Amino acid sequence: MDLIFLRRFLPAVLTAVCALGQAQELKPIQLPPPQTEGGRPLMQVLKERATSREFRADKLPPQVLSNLLWAAWGVNRSDSGKRTAPSASNRQEIEIYAAMADGLYLYDAKTHALKGVLAADLRAATGNQEFVGQAPLNLVYVADLSRMGGGDPQRHAMTLGADTGFIAQNVYLFCASERLATVVRGLVDREKLAQVMKLRPDQRITYSQTVGYPR
Amino acid sequence: MDLIFLRRFLPAVLTAVCALGQAQELKPIQLPPPQTEGGRPLMQVLKERATSREFRADKLPPQVLSNLLWAAWGVNRSDSGKRTAPSASNRQEIEIYAAMADGLYLYDAKTHALKGVLAADLRAATGNQEFVGQAPLNLVYVADLSRMGGGDPQRHAMTLGADTGFIAQNVYLFCASERLATVVRGLVDREKLAQVMKLRPDQRITYSQTVGYPR
Repeated sequence: MDLIFLRRFLPAVLTAVCALGQAQELKPIQLPPPQTEGGRPLMQVLKERATSREFRADKLPPQVLSNLLWAAWGVNRSDSGKRTAPSASNRQEIEIYAAMADGLYLYDAKTHALKGVLAADLRAATGNQEFVGQAPLNLVYVADLSRMGGGDPQRHAMTLGADTGFIAQNVYLFCASERLATVVRGLVDREKLAQVMKLRPDQRITYSQTVGYPR
Repeated sequence: MDLIFLRRFLPAVLTAVCALGQAQELKPIQLPPPQTEGGRPLMQVLKERATSREFRADKLPPQVLSNLLWAAWGVNRSDSGKRTAPSASNRQEIEIYAAMADGLYLYDAKTHALKGVLAADLRAATGNQEFVGQAPLNLVYVADLSRMGGGDPQRHAMTLGADTGFIAQNVYLFCASERLATVVRGLVDREKLAQVMKLRPDQRITYSQTVGYPR
């Protein structure tokens, strides 16, 4: 390749390469502000709390997604950054990833936004039942072990389970209130899923939860 | 002792001994039917979900206790016996004990009653903070390992944590709806508490949760 060619075309080639890189990057989703006043009466919601494994493929509208994530694990006291669910010693070690058709996102409670993680449809990898690849949303609960003060992760197993359970029950009740279908799933191939999600070694998948409109 | 004495007084002595035995026994509490329609709107409840460690000593009225236990882990589908919270493979391995001033009770979801377990005030033994002995109610979540299909209990730790978390979050939301104070506690001397509660070897305490009116 001669130097004149390089000098003339290199900027264009570099621009094209960068554009390709960006196309693979997943844009963040700024969710609309959550509606924190509505919903059906709590006891009615508890009466209808149930597990369902039959989902339509329809996407969740942005407002429903916003309300769902806030209900699950949003900030409900902006002064302290405290959340809709408790966590051991307020460590807030559980993070929610959202696997949707267009990619994998990470819920950032502070900005109430979904950060783009991977531009790939990982829904089917979140479980071994057929419906997980068809439902519009699979939440993946991931513990950040770096916030657990070290030690053997197995020592924290009950804490990580409970801290996930608090959040997942919020999702159950939100779904009952909004007549959405949901199931929390412990049968997850955690190692394989962590690989495709490109998690760090100090992250541990606890549970996954499928959400969608009932069929 | 001569025979005439025995013949005359034995029936009275036996009656007295039996009465003494009965006084030590704790009568069950048949709760009023739960009110399964009311409560505040779910999103409002999530907005006010919080942990509090300041309790008045006032007892919870029977209707509040009934609603609380049903919300926590009651039967919400009488045909199948399914509950207000999920559990792994529907094993329903978590049991709720209620430590109150007059004794320790076990919640029976099927009959929606509190079975008397021990006529002793075990509230202070459910934790190491002063408020636990003063608040009117400490729930103790206990896993029945015999329903977990055997194996090392540590293998089930995350499941037992999650299955407790689902229930405890129901209690959090019920308390937010009813303006009650509550805190779920993992710092429990489980071995000592299991001893005073006279639990079986196949029972494992997971968490405790204090409930009362806010101070």
